[in-house]
Amino acid sequence: MPSLLAQTIAAIGPLDSDALVAAAARQAQLTKPAGSMGRLEGLGERLSGMYAACPPPIPAPVAVAVFAADHGVWAQGVSPWPQEVTVQMVANVATGGAVVSVLADQVGASVVVVDVGVAGEVPPGLGVVDRKIASGTGDFSVGPAMTAAECQEAIEVGITIANQLIDDGVQLLVTGDLGIGNTAASAALIAAMTGAPAVDVTGPGAGSDAAMVAHKASVIEQALDRHTGPRRGVPGAEDAALTLLAAVGGFEHAALVGFMLGAAARRKPVLLDGVIACSAALVAHALCPGVTDYLIAGHRSSEPGATAALAALGLTPLLDLDLRLGEGSGAVLAVPLVQASARLLRDVATFDSAGVSGRSS
Amino acid sequence: MPSLLAQTIAAIGPLDSDALVAAAARQAQLTKPAGSMGRLEGLGERLSGMYAACPPPIPAPVAVAVFAADHGVWAQGVSPWPQEVTVQMVANVATGGAVVSVLADQVGASVVVVDVGVAGEVPPGLGVVDRKIASGTGDFSVGPAMTAAECQEAIEVGITIANQLIDDGVQLLVTGDLGIGNTAASAALIAAMTGAPAVDVTGPGAGSDAAMVAHKASVIEQALDRHTGPRRGVPGAEDAALTLLAAVGGFEHAALVGFMLGAAARRKPVLLDGVIACSAALVAHALCPGVTDYLIAGHRSSEPGATAALAALGLTPLLDLDLRLGEGSGAVLAVPLVQASARLLRDVATFDSAGVSGRSS
Repeated sequence: MPSLLAQTIAAIGPLDSDALVAAAARQAQLTKPAGSMGRLEGLGERLSGMYAACPPPIPAPVAVAVFAADHGVWAQGVSPWPQEVTVQMVANVATGGAVVSVLADQVGASVVVVDVGVAGEVPPGLGVVDRKIASGTGDFSVGPAMTAAECQEAIEVGITIANQLIDDGVQLLVTGDLGIGNTAASAALIAAMTGAPAVDVTGPGAGSDAAMVAHKASVIEQALDRHTGPRRGVPGAEDAALTLLAAVGGFEHAALVGFMLGAAARRKPVLLDGVIACSAALVAHALCPGVTDYLIAGHRSSEPGATAALAALGLTPLLDLDLRLGEGSGAVLAVPLVQASARLLRDVATFDSAGVSGRSS
Repeated sequence: MPSLLAQTIAAIGPLDSDALVAAAARQAQLTKPAGSMGRLEGLGERLSGMYAACPPPIPAPVAVAVFAADHGVWAQGVSPWPQEVTVQMVANVATGGAVVSVLADQVGASVVVVDVGVAGEVPPGLGVVDRKIASGTGDFSVGPAMTAAECQEAIEVGITIANQLIDDGVQLLVTGDLGIGNTAASAALIAAMTGAPAVDVTGPGAGSDAAMVAHKASVIEQALDRHTGPRRGVPGAEDAALTLLAAVGGFEHAALVGFMLGAAARRKPVLLDGVIACSAALVAHALCPGVTDYLIAGHRSSEPGATAALAALGLTPLLDLDLRLGEGSGAVLAVPLVQASARLLRDVATFDSAGVSGRSS
């Protein structure tokens, strides 16, 4: 019997071409100059293709899945924050005090926090979903971050969470993440998948100074030499992508890969947050190129790796506000834009229905 | 007794410095890395300064004022659309079918449509506020668009509408506009106020082709030579700005000038839509430089004049989605971002309250 991952990949189909054609035709009849709503026009049409419906449903309810984990590479001094902040922030998100909690509340999105590998003990009673695979990954500077089995398990957690949310009626899935050290794992994945030097795609994350960023890039560069050797920049094959993910990724990265694939298999859009989500999207794309049809880039994180990953994915972000918090915060800010693009196709009057004259030249 | 305009300008004060200091201090205590919410951090702090309160109130209720008027210069063939579309679109906005209506509904904003100079008869019973000054402006290519008295009256309409909305409890005012030909008037104002050649700040508006854009720029350039002569690019004095506004502006531009000044005098933020609002903001700034403290640029319209005007105003827009519809649509899309910036300051937990450790280096 094929694995859950293989089944999920097999279920991912293209955008619905009939709905795409119908949406483009409808867009042209709405009472506005052709093209005047800019990038929201194409987005609305893409949503029609994803949902296979014209007009598309308004993408709601919305759920943010915040996958939380710790990182062995933290021990190499790649973050100015103590590792205990991961578990503390898990509690902060779960109790509604974190930025993503506040922003999700504004847009009416639910937040599910999933412990896929936090090093500390998550306090009980907070509603955090316990899918802990290990107490943090291994240090990728000295060996693989996870075993192949752990990586597979984390991916399956993401697929399962996506399916559960969709079973509960969720129409728009938003990526979230928590984990001190996770921008290092993201930069490693992006450098390996795009072929960029680590120094070009490594940023300050949650606030490293210039010296720490340089050290972080050096740790990543050396680890990639060790793990990927000549395959660097040639992600190509599925098993190579999985090997890379296990070698330098985090449990939350692997879960996000599964989350994206799981949503795409059910024809639901996934709104990407920042550099962690973008790095996971590169892996998901290597496993199944068609997944990107269902991905919407919420914003351009100020982390340099995000721009490299978005370019490699061919995605243009909706927002560009110098955000670099993570948690899903930037993606949640983009939710109203995604909903607006669908609402325009559904609710704006046509030239005929409103009795508005067409252009005369 | 001083005019309503003079009284309004006299009432505009600076941002509240105590609230600005308190907001910056609070921002630093929130459970996120310093600076990680990018441009939303400064925006939230500015809102504190505008409202003179830390945290600021959430900017709601929200109202969009759509000032509608026609333009004599339309007769010169500067738009591919028949002039009757202005009155038809007034009805479409008022009955909820236009893009701005649909987007305002999504964010819970009310929409007030104000006829300040539509050429046709606005059907009764639609709730459109009748403050018609004339049936369209004069053709600025052959003479001034309005008399000084008409210009003053239109500005006072804008001030009065702002005051009425604020008296009704509105906390965030959004600019809207309707009027076939109004990008020509906007380009003329922007060229005159910034000193840019008309050809650099004239765009396709609601869909002119390249030949029509070139013709439009030529009409504007010749009109500016006639009206402004050597004062071009030196807006400076208040009376020069009013003379220019009367010479080439539209009734909706003048009303927007008053709307911005009226809101700033009551310490309420004004969210700017595209090139029409940006051109009016240049005039408002010439009348009272302090008004820009209360202006928030909603988006960067793809009209070239918008970028020139935003640069001259020193404003960085929140969105950049190639929008060029007008009506207030781009500004309404930015409402959730403005509200989010205030909500973060109000609702996010502090390091102390959430028991989250600070950075260790």
